[in-house]
Amino acid sequence: MATHYLTEEVQNKYHYTVGPYVSPVLRVRPGDTIVVETRDAFEGRITHEGIKPSQVLEYPYVNPQNGPVYVEGAEPGDCLAVRIDSIKPRGPQPRGTTCLVPYFGGLTATDLTAMLHDPLPEIVRKLEVTEEHVTWNTRLKFPYKPFIGTISTSPRIDSIGALTPGNHGGNMDLPDICPGATIYLPVRIEGALLYLGDCHATQGDGELCGVAIEHPTRTTITVDVRKQWTLSWPRLESDTFIMSIGSARPMEDAARIAYADLVKWLVADYGFDKWDAYLVLTQIGRARLGNMVDPNYTIGAGIAKTYLPE
Amino acid sequence: MATHYLTEEVQNKYHYTVGPYVSPVLRVRPGDTIVVETRDAFEGRITHEGIKPSQVLEYPYVNPQNGPVYVEGAEPGDCLAVRIDSIKPRGPQPRGTTCLVPYFGGLTATDLTAMLHDPLPEIVRKLEVTEEHVTWNTRLKFPYKPFIGTISTSPRIDSIGALTPGNHGGNMDLPDICPGATIYLPVRIEGALLYLGDCHATQGDGELCGVAIEHPTRTTITVDVRKQWTLSWPRLESDTFIMSIGSARPMEDAARIAYADLVKWLVADYGFDKWDAYLVLTQIGRARLGNMVDPNYTIGAGIAKTYLPE
Amino acid sequence: MATHYLTEEVQNKYHYTVGPYVSPVLRVRPGDTIVVETRDAFEGRITHEGIKPSQVLEYPYVNPQNGPVYVEGAEPGDCLAVRIDSIKPRGPQPRGTTCLVPYFGGLTATDLTAMLHDPLPEIVRKLEVTEEHVTWNTRLKFPYKPFIGTISTSPRIDSIGALTPGNHGGNMDLPDICPGATIYLPVRIEGALLYLGDCHATQGDGELCGVAIEHPTRTTITVDVRKQWTLSWPRLESDTFIMSIGSARPMEDAARIAYADLVKWLVADYGFDKWDAYLVLTQIGRARLGNMVDPNYTIGAGIAKTYLPE
Amino acid sequence: MATHYLTEEVQNKYHYTVGPYVSPVLRVRPGDTIVVETRDAFEGRITHEGIKPSQVLEYPYVNPQNGPVYVEGAEPGDCLAVRIDSIKPRGPQPRGTTCLVPYFGGLTATDLTAMLHDPLPEIVRKLEVTEEHVTWNTRLKFPYKPFIGTISTSPRIDSIGALTPGNHGGNMDLPDICPGATIYLPVRIEGALLYLGDCHATQGDGELCGVAIEHPTRTTITVDVRKQWTLSWPRLESDTFIMSIGSARPMEDAARIAYADLVKWLVADYGFDKWDAYLVLTQIGRARLGNMVDPNYTIGAGIAKTYLPE
Repeated sequence: MATHYLTEEVQNKYHYTVGPYVSPVLRVRPGDTIVVETRDAFEGRITHEGIKPSQVLEYPYVNPQNGPVYVEGAEPGDCLAVRIDSIKPRGPQPRGTTCLVPYFGGLTATDLTAMLHDPLPEIVRKLEVTEEHVTWNTRLKFPYKPFIGTISTSPRIDSIGALTPGNHGGNMDLPDICPGATIYLPVRIEGALLYLGDCHATQGDGELCGVAIEHPTRTTITVDVRKQWTLSWPRLESDTFIMSIGSARPMEDAARIAYADLVKWLVADYGFDKWDAYLVLTQIGRARLGNMVDPNYTIGAGIAKTYLPE
Repeated sequence: MATHYLTEEVQNKYHYTVGPYVSPVLRVRPGDTIVVETRDAFEGRITHEGIKPSQVLEYPYVNPQNGPVYVEGAEPGDCLAVRIDSIKPRGPQPRGTTCLVPYFGGLTATDLTAMLHDPLPEIVRKLEVTEEHVTWNTRLKFPYKPFIGTISTSPRIDSIGALTPGNHGGNMDLPDICPGATIYLPVRIEGALLYLGDCHATQGDGELCGVAIEHPTRTTITVDVRKQWTLSWPRLESDTFIMSIGSARPMEDAARIAYADLVKWLVADYGFDKWDAYLVLTQIGRARLGNMVDPNYTIGAGIAKTYLPE
Repeated sequence: MATHYLTEEVQNKYHYTVGPYVSPVLRVRPGDTIVVETRDAFEGRITHEGIKPSQVLEYPYVNPQNGPVYVEGAEPGDCLAVRIDSIKPRGPQPRGTTCLVPYFGGLTATDLTAMLHDPLPEIVRKLEVTEEHVTWNTRLKFPYKPFIGTISTSPRIDSIGALTPGNHGGNMDLPDICPGATIYLPVRIEGALLYLGDCHATQGDGELCGVAIEHPTRTTITVDVRKQWTLSWPRLESDTFIMSIGSARPMEDAARIAYADLVKWLVADYGFDKWDAYLVLTQIGRARLGNMVDPNYTIGAGIAKTYLPE
Repeated sequence: MATHYLTEEVQNKYHYTVGPYVSPVLRVRPGDTIVVETRDAFEGRITHEGIKPSQVLEYPYVNPQNGPVYVEGAEPGDCLAVRIDSIKPRGPQPRGTTCLVPYFGGLTATDLTAMLHDPLPEIVRKLEVTEEHVTWNTRLKFPYKPFIGTISTSPRIDSIGALTPGNHGGNMDLPDICPGATIYLPVRIEGALLYLGDCHATQGDGELCGVAIEHPTRTTITVDVRKQWTLSWPRLESDTFIMSIGSARPMEDAARIAYADLVKWLVADYGFDKWDAYLVLTQIGRARLGNMVDPNYTIGAGIAKTYLPE
């Protein structure tokens, strides 16, 4: 099992769309570990609190992704299992960034929920981020709870913007994609072509204003291939639960996708009767709101492993 | 402080709509405690697993509510604070009921999400419920985690079906409305007119199939009036967090309502700047999906008290 | 066949909620004609362009409704057929009103689509309305195309705010409910209890800002009862087409309801095979957006009579 | 002004995704005319009524597109104006196809509105299509009212599936994109890269079951470039009206996009005050439902030219 280093230098050019039209930056084997230097979602352009995001951001060149990583032996119909080993902040302080971006967020008119309002004010916060805390102000510190905001395998022929989550993974912004968990992604082309980036130092459910504590990281993952495990949507497994992940609008469709896929999973792999799974999840299912701000919203639906047969 | 007993006998006639058009069944004072005998959502009509729900249910006569309780001194513009002291199951075993009701639920076509599919099968489960467990089958037990599914104050002039949640409270199906918590409801008419019912023995996020573990209970609450605390939407407080509750369709609107109200609350009562509240909730807000099955969906948005100033 | 006059004097008190809890103001027989003096949606309180709507409107006391009219012989399970004979403007000029109301409308944040924006400006336009035209300014005149914005039968036990459309009819704001057409409403209680009001002098699809050309009218209708024609949702018939009307959020659910009901109608009354109806409507169905601003959105789905068997 | 022939032979390989990653099949100049041989949405694979769509369709290889056509002089920030000169059916009879595809359509559970229902039946209709009629059966003929279902310019870096409409155009399924109209599309890369296909012989509002009368055509268009007319969303112009086109989910967001863009257009090019435009569209705006079945829904919002200043 080799360890690969996908440093800024090796990556060189980051990507803003996820598809089959670029050459792999790295080739690895199932079982290999990769240490990835991710950039923050603004690619470091928001350097101080006096900057207006609208001055330095140019769509669609946001949310830079590392990759694609070609995984040997991954073929359409397989599943790529990505275990997140660790996420560490890197770069000079204050290395954390959050801000209000015009017409982007959960409590503002947007390009898609179009209205006649003027934009909300642009506000930037630069924050010290350590492996223990995010320091908000003299009174408030948040625990460092890092996760990968965006992780994808390549669609077959589409190339999807790095801001959009979907059945390829993408910008799910789901805090459960964190160290200790394994995310399962559908393999749709040979080699899978794994992309990732957009690590958050912490984030609330829904990523309310659209910008969590963005920060550059050194993220270590280990990839594996599950042959002939054909997923329609991403799934996740931690020590204590399994979860299906849906991304769609309106939000109820994300919830429906996630729960319907979880029913399917319980039936296929855990011996549940279909209607029994539906009824059991009614009583003990757990839902997690990833984002309520991206082109699709993301909800994860899970069940504790204690309720699964051995 | 008096204790009142709203038994089945005292209640006599249960209600299926929540409004100002019926006489109070009880009059209490702020600080008084009420022990309420709630019926299950089917009013006990689903007595065994051989029954088809469609044979015994007749809309809109479902989800029976106790009340209304007139609270002395409660006036429009005030808030009614209802602390849930305890919820105990009652009635003969198997006292728990869940089932699949035709064209009702989260993963089925419904009257509102109309399609051309035949209905899913009607399935009934009758379950033993104790103060410790719900026994699903020989392998699976769920912890008894009771809460009030439906609790409301009266609208000013509308009378709203007991299945519908809204800014009057109603059928929120939010598991956080449980013993130890206080639910805050807006007072819109003199005396507030409190209604409640629909207690669940346990429920997963979203109440996936639309029917949790329904059961009759003895529910003890204590009511209080907060003068001139004028709420737009219900709020909740536990030992560890505060929460605003939105109910709407599509689901993102429920989330928007809840988070927007929480921003307002942080500004009004906790000294936050509006934009700071928005940014802070982005990092540490918590969302809970109540129901994804009722005429409106319900989401609670909360923040841990550890992040609030003393 | 009698003609009844429901003048302002006879009506005396207008209603802001639609339900079974008030006494009929009039009793009529099937085949009778009623001449109704409707008030405008603001009940005449917006008298000049210098007024701010927020100063004179008090929720929920808006959208005044005439009625309820008790129709002899109408019983639950029947259909109430209301033919609109004519609509004439009344009252002193400028008798037309449109305006921007804070947090109400299709291109603004609202109470239900909650955001952190300040409200759009309050603007009032008072307009001359004749039986030929609405005069917008020196350049623009709109043809007078009046219709009934809100028309309902009573729910069984709920009382629904006059701003809300639903399966009882209500605030559909559908321009097809105009002279020459017959609207069919489900009868859910004895006597049906018909309410109506909110006539518009003209309106675009969607009623974009939420306020059409509101004006007081003398509206003449003729009511009839179709025994045992049990509707789930309102329907409409003109000389040239039939239409089913759905009201829900999100908007696609309004469209689904309307088209699914139209499939049902084609099968039940016009001899279509279910799947053939679905396929035929795909090719020649017509959809009309009523409102995109009310608590539910309204869409009518229709088919030209030329495609129906004789 | 040259005329180019984009025959099946010239096209050779059709495309199922719309983006910048393929080489132009044709280069034209502003003012040039192109005669395009489009294939039907199933690429002719549904040859008779005994075929099940699920047997012959393989996602994402559906909805074949001609192009891309490189337009000389078109640069980012410009607008590509495509006038539809004519659409003629071609190919052997019965050349029209409609069908029910499993889990696709407006009145069925789908991959995105996931449910636990079995799929609706698969039904195929093969139909005679002439320049006058579509013959449904011995009783029913529909007028031939052809239009282009899918027409796009290339996104900057994304490649978007041919089934999806968006701000690049795409699978809008809007019957107003018909002979005599000009569709305006944003130019986002040099040469614009125009794609088109998916012509329908007729279609109802919403394309209810998801499959209109699909047929191969000879479609003649003339392209032009409007320098520095920078569109956010597609627009359309006919002899009698102008229209903005929004595509999103939920459907109200499509309507909001369309109407908000139309307000912007009226202000920028027709001298309207912003609030006056909002108020005027409330009274005389027209909305057209394109599709209610694709990954985004499409609504066009228009205003008659008679209400525009000269």
